Amino acid sequence: MRDVGIIGIGQTPVAEHWGRSIRDLAVEAVQAARQDAGVERVDAVYVGNMLSGELAGQENLATLVADAAGLLPVEALKIEAACASGGAALRAAYLAVASGAHDYVLAVGVEKMTDLLTDGVTAALATAADADYEAGHGISFVALNALLMRRYMHEHKARHEEFAPFSVNSHRNAARNPCAMYRHEITAEDFMASPIVSDPINILDSAGICDGAAAILVAPGSEARRARRPPVRIAASTCATDTVGLAERKDPLVWQAVADSARLAYAQAKVAPRDIDLFEVHDAFTIVSVLSLEACGFADRGSALKLAAEGRIAREGDIPICTLGGLKGRGHPVGASGAYQLVETVLQLRGEAGEAQVKGARVGMAQSVGGSGSVAVTHILTV
Amino acid sequence: MRDVGIIGIGQTPVAEHWGRSIRDLAVEAVQAARQDAGVERVDAVYVGNMLSGELAGQENLATLVADAAGLLPVEALKIEAACASGGAALRAAYLAVASGAHDYVLAVGVEKMTDLLTDGVTAALATAADADYEAGHGISFVALNALLMRRYMHEHKARHEEFAPFSVNSHRNAARNPCAMYRHEITAEDFMASPIVSDPINILDSAGICDGAAAILVAPGSEARRARRPPVRIAASTCATDTVGLAERKDPLVWQAVADSARLAYAQAKVAPRDIDLFEVHDAFTIVSVLSLEACGFADRGSALKLAAEGRIAREGDIPICTLGGLKGRGHPVGASGAYQLVETVLQLRGEAGEAQVKGARVGMAQSVGGSGSVAVTHILTV
Repeated sequence: MRDVGIIGIGQTPVAEHWGRSIRDLAVEAVQAARQDAGVERVDAVYVGNMLSGELAGQENLATLVADAAGLLPVEALKIEAACASGGAALRAAYLAVASGAHDYVLAVGVEKMTDLLTDGVTAALATAADADYEAGHGISFVALNALLMRRYMHEHKARHEEFAPFSVNSHRNAARNPCAMYRHEITAEDFMASPIVSDPINILDSAGICDGAAAILVAPGSEARRARRPPVRIAASTCATDTVGLAERKDPLVWQAVADSARLAYAQAKVAPRDIDLFEVHDAFTIVSVLSLEACGFADRGSALKLAAEGRIAREGDIPICTLGGLKGRGHPVGASGAYQLVETVLQLRGEAGEAQVKGARVGMAQSVGGSGSVAVTHILTV
Repeated sequence: MRDVGIIGIGQTPVAEHWGRSIRDLAVEAVQAARQDAGVERVDAVYVGNMLSGELAGQENLATLVADAAGLLPVEALKIEAACASGGAALRAAYLAVASGAHDYVLAVGVEKMTDLLTDGVTAALATAADADYEAGHGISFVALNALLMRRYMHEHKARHEEFAPFSVNSHRNAARNPCAMYRHEITAEDFMASPIVSDPINILDSAGICDGAAAILVAPGSEARRARRPPVRIAASTCATDTVGLAERKDPLVWQAVADSARLAYAQAKVAPRDIDLFEVHDAFTIVSVLSLEACGFADRGSALKLAAEGRIAREGDIPICTLGGLKGRGHPVGASGAYQLVETVLQLRGEAGEAQVKGARVGMAQSVGGSGSVAVTHILTV
């Protein structure tokens, strides 16, 4: 396998982009990544997206993006893995370059969610669950996560306020990210005063519905080392799966796909959790951060809340997470989020994260999760 | 790049499977491919599908299939390129094995279209067109192809009955394929008596709405040569794109993505059109066969109808197409069709096509097209 590096990144601000279409957003991110790299040539584009069919009436999305960005006649395919689609697009790009089939490949994550009312978006998001055995009975995606959170609180005798530090940390970091949607800090009191969405999950446990696109341009390692921007190496790229239905799992509080994907990534990159300088965790809900930190070996079972309480997840801590706001603070345009995580990890490793910079970051992990932990795509990037 | 071979194939009959779900169909094809190969191990599964979100309320489809087929915790991603999704799934599998990341990878194509009434399916199929500039104005997918056919008839002074041999050929071959949906022969008179769908396209110009799944198990060439089934080599795997909107093309009768994808495939496989023993063409409508044969170098511009009239596309001709019925005769479960084409090409190259066998077939080409020629995935297989 050829070594693969990241030579360019681009992103749009995450927002409610009512005046812009899904293609506008994707093109902006694509052109930003090409400009960042100073490279015109693109051999293929893989577009990570979950809901363009349901929300924009648009399949054939990758060709549409290639067309709108002036990239024809490149190879173009859409990659879907629910909310892990953005990370999965980089996975596809990585394989295409590692194989030797292509040299310059774009991974794009894009989602446009705000053209529908919330009810429509809630129904669309439920397609990440099992249509026949979960969503068909009326349970929403947030409700599935609420079941997990309630179970966690019961099993570990945890109180809701113990989840506050995750949301506080995400907002604190988002305030320092010009592309974030929620650029205001919050307090633990704000968190507890926040209205319930699906008991026990409240508004500030939850990442918001929004629009955005992010793009990553990859090339063979030899090219990346000659690139004009500081080279970032893809040291690991992995994907693993678990049952889609929560009821099918032996223990719903063990996120096995997340654990497997991380384990494979550590092995490929030859690192251990203690070597990770920052972790872009998939904090769609605070409970997802908790379960992911435990599955990835950063905390023992039942102890991730303590990690947060002790400030260890902060920018200055030993395992900074959501360093530019995460899904909660930056916003969660679902199929794009994994690509944003990767762009943010690159910014940190290049030392370009501004006020949100994690000092001395050299090894970053970004993990994109789809469904209620049913599919996980993990990348470890190094400088 | 590592050499990649096909070691197992599986398919369900194409039909209106009212009693079976999308996961049932996919699992049947997956298990048939594993059984055919005599191999238990699967490292990754890439699922080609276009409309599971719109028609089954199911995204996260690849994980669902991996789960239902007992393949957890394998890598699982859905690949979408409109009606080219089935071919695109093999493209992804090919890259994963060529790169060295995986050894045993399944490409699955699956679509379940008959749970909705035709109006709903027509709307869903229009998502392959440009949502803002084409479908948004009410044009259906068949109507876009009707515009192409009318233009072709005008430019080349062609009569509708000249398209009949394509449909007659597909039905003749389908009658010899136990997995085909329309296993009855038709005559040119039947063709002309068929009701118009979107002038000038009639029912027998058009592939039907249906359900099905097909799967291909690939492995490194060294493994394939040791496999228990006759080894089939993937000599070329390519993808190219054109504008999504028909109005954006300089000449809508030149299918540039199809031409580019074929040209790249010939170069990779080191063959010319005259070396191709059979061509599984994407005959969603008869006009698609015509434009594809011309774009791929089997006929000069305006002369593909003559190729058909002379019987050269028949099983006994010099460029047999749709040898097991094609999309028209076997049926066109859209995201699955590309995978069916590949399964059928393998059957021909193995000499296992029964009454539909093309004698002495050693080089087969399968081409999966999405949108109105906006994306094309081409594979050349050899024995």
